[in-house]
Amino acid sequence: MTTKIVLHESDLPRQWYNLNADLPVPMPPPLTPDGKPITPEMLRPIFPNALIEQEVSTKRWIDIPEEVIQILAKWRPTPLHRAYSLEKYLKTPARIYYKNESLSPAGSHKPNTAVAQAWYNKREGVKKLTTETGAGQWGSALAFACAQVGLECQVFMVRISYDQKPYRKMMMQTWGAECIPSPSDRTQAGRDVLAKDPNTPGSLGIAISEAVEMAVTDPTHSTKYALGSVLNHVMLHQTVIGLETKKQLALAGEKKVDVVIGCAGGGSNFAGLAFPFVADKINGAQIDIIPVEPASCPTLTKGPYLYDLGDFSGMTPLLPMYTLGHTFVPAPIHAGGLRYHGMAPLVSQAARLGLIRPVAIQQLECFRAALTFARTEGIIVAPETSHAVASAIREAEKAREEGKEKVIVFNLSGHGLVDLKGYDMFMKGELSDFELPMAEIEKNLEAIKNFPKPEPLGTK
Amino acid sequence: MTTKIVLHESDLPRQWYNLNADLPVPMPPPLTPDGKPITPEMLRPIFPNALIEQEVSTKRWIDIPEEVIQILAKWRPTPLHRAYSLEKYLKTPARIYYKNESLSPAGSHKPNTAVAQAWYNKREGVKKLTTETGAGQWGSALAFACAQVGLECQVFMVRISYDQKPYRKMMMQTWGAECIPSPSDRTQAGRDVLAKDPNTPGSLGIAISEAVEMAVTDPTHSTKYALGSVLNHVMLHQTVIGLETKKQLALAGEKKVDVVIGCAGGGSNFAGLAFPFVADKINGAQIDIIPVEPASCPTLTKGPYLYDLGDFSGMTPLLPMYTLGHTFVPAPIHAGGLRYHGMAPLVSQAARLGLIRPVAIQQLECFRAALTFARTEGIIVAPETSHAVASAIREAEKAREEGKEKVIVFNLSGHGLVDLKGYDMFMKGELSDFELPMAEIEKNLEAIKNFPKPEPLGTK
Repeated sequence: MTTKIVLHESDLPRQWYNLNADLPVPMPPPLTPDGKPITPEMLRPIFPNALIEQEVSTKRWIDIPEEVIQILAKWRPTPLHRAYSLEKYLKTPARIYYKNESLSPAGSHKPNTAVAQAWYNKREGVKKLTTETGAGQWGSALAFACAQVGLECQVFMVRISYDQKPYRKMMMQTWGAECIPSPSDRTQAGRDVLAKDPNTPGSLGIAISEAVEMAVTDPTHSTKYALGSVLNHVMLHQTVIGLETKKQLALAGEKKVDVVIGCAGGGSNFAGLAFPFVADKINGAQIDIIPVEPASCPTLTKGPYLYDLGDFSGMTPLLPMYTLGHTFVPAPIHAGGLRYHGMAPLVSQAARLGLIRPVAIQQLECFRAALTFARTEGIIVAPETSHAVASAIREAEKAREEGKEKVIVFNLSGHGLVDLKGYDMFMKGELSDFELPMAEIEKNLEAIKNFPKPEPLGTK
Repeated sequence: MTTKIVLHESDLPRQWYNLNADLPVPMPPPLTPDGKPITPEMLRPIFPNALIEQEVSTKRWIDIPEEVIQILAKWRPTPLHRAYSLEKYLKTPARIYYKNESLSPAGSHKPNTAVAQAWYNKREGVKKLTTETGAGQWGSALAFACAQVGLECQVFMVRISYDQKPYRKMMMQTWGAECIPSPSDRTQAGRDVLAKDPNTPGSLGIAISEAVEMAVTDPTHSTKYALGSVLNHVMLHQTVIGLETKKQLALAGEKKVDVVIGCAGGGSNFAGLAFPFVADKINGAQIDIIPVEPASCPTLTKGPYLYDLGDFSGMTPLLPMYTLGHTFVPAPIHAGGLRYHGMAPLVSQAARLGLIRPVAIQQLECFRAALTFARTEGIIVAPETSHAVASAIREAEKAREEGKEKVIVFNLSGHGLVDLKGYDMFMKGELSDFELPMAEIEKNLEAIKNFPKPEPLGTK
């Protein structure tokens, strides 16, 4: 009886897997607001060349630099746990596994891409990275990564989070990053907002604008910007998760996987686990691959597939994706990392092609699942991750009802040790479910009705 | 180049190591306040038989129950990391290793004994465990362990910590434990204190009294009490740390260890790593074994070896140990887990026999070391652990000055993700050093001058 399957450093993947190489129908290209394809030149003020190349690459396997592997090896390969205690509690014949990404120094999967991005920037002579962060998961991961490779790091943190969630701010500072409440007086974008409303709580859109402005206006041209989800190169870097998992399942003697689950906000932890399995599915394997989103932010399950901005403020190209409209403001659920209006274009295309099966789950079911998981398996998961746990429990219960010995794998994308407020409110009965009305979605989509439209599937 | 040495579950130790079997001079026995040896019968209302047996055992190896191993296997064996980044930063020829106990679900080494204690209690028909906690490390570890074996758990948390440090309280509740601010109206001890001062911030001494009272007054005799440090059986359970470390060093090709380091409050994480190496030292190996304490609570470095109470309020037997006097109130340093007036009798005896070499380090040096460690190795350590890091850096710098390729191993006993306030204050320049005056120590020792005295060494 092996509780967790561990790998040695020599088993760390040497290449990332690029789903772009295998999609039966390629995703439509990102566009400028007036409908022209985005060229690499347009991205050069913001990203280093290597990442721009990865963003558009259709190579199936992309080498991971040895120096990146050496940093990842500080916590990777991560263990794959067998959830014996949860299985017993659920009385399910299913075998449940979870990949434990909470063991990174920042407590989530985010450093997988942060390290790669920081390293490529450093190699191309960049001195400083800027980024935005909401609750602080991404900002702290990038701060960690910049310390590892020797880059300055500047994080614009939404002011209300900066004030209310001091722990991740302190993490960033401990790793040597500068953490600035946004809006700030450092940028024109920030000053404009403050002039209108000095007491604004800030927003992710404003923080993105500030971070990008700092990068593109640096007179020494040695500052770039980093993004923690949505883009193709971010999905790529996360595939170490799924590649390791496949090795570990083989070691556990599992010849077939039935269900693969990840929570999905921007899409990166889901893609990281799922894309190597999506490749198997494209090649004919029968796998149910489930991205799980909050019912209050049901991008894949209720949004249409359209071109939309990746951010609230129009700094990004138009991306082809499922979206609730970039002006959408989700309910204040505790899974802050899942409150994103869109979905990574690669994940969106996989959904559109029927390769994955999105579900939306309500907040209360997720916290109930997280509490069950904490009291059986012992790990307190992040509120985001609780969505994957809830889905895994649903699937395990279904397997019990069907009397089937299914193999279920989910991504434990992060721990919740600095997000316990949500658990506290749940246990006190202070949380409630929230169903997003279609009228609300339609209202937000009104604002993007004049954007170009993706070609329908099957028109080529 | 291997960054960390991982073991498989089959390498998890099957037996704990008991230093009591090998001490050249046995430790003096615990006594009642009037000088009589404590008998197992006196302990039965508080502890289960198996733990009382372990407390007095002189067997060298004690079997770990298979069920305990299965729970420990959820996160054990923990990795042994090679600190390449720190070595490079320090330009030291030393090879620095650290054992990563921060990867347990509770974030520290404490669950190693919490699981064993909970399991033995459960086996003997106990239904509920009570304990006290200061900052919450021990309380959360016991809450986790009780959920694992299916016991109720009741934690009396010092009121000021309960109010100021809500995260660990929420962790306990997430694992299903009841967390009660102490003093409370649940116990006579609590009611007495509240009657005198309804606004008292509470103390560890009062919390111990409440937890023990709940256990001994349970009319169904199904409640026992659990302690997270100091006692022999706690040291015993922690030796999995050092036993794994020895296997891992051998796998790394290290034939000899020069320096072994752990921070020391009550002594349990230090003992866990160090005792298996102390055994080697007793058998003739040349190893410098260093318990590191805060300069503001210098039990081993400035306290005398005496009989003293283990707690502030007189609920425990008299223990033979280095002590600053049980009435000692340490300065409010951020390493809450190191603010203990005494030291585990086994650790004390090892110090008295010259088998270990205690050092005390000031708070500012420790936080400086922790910041260096976070920015090189990437892990944000607990303020307690920062003392071990500071000592490791001192030893690595000494190796550089001496031009020696020493092998240094320290215990990374816990992460600091829910203790970031200390880092924040350090970075803002709000912390300062504190040297405990001898007069202050002498004043506290006055209160115990009439206790029996341990026999001097060499009188047998």
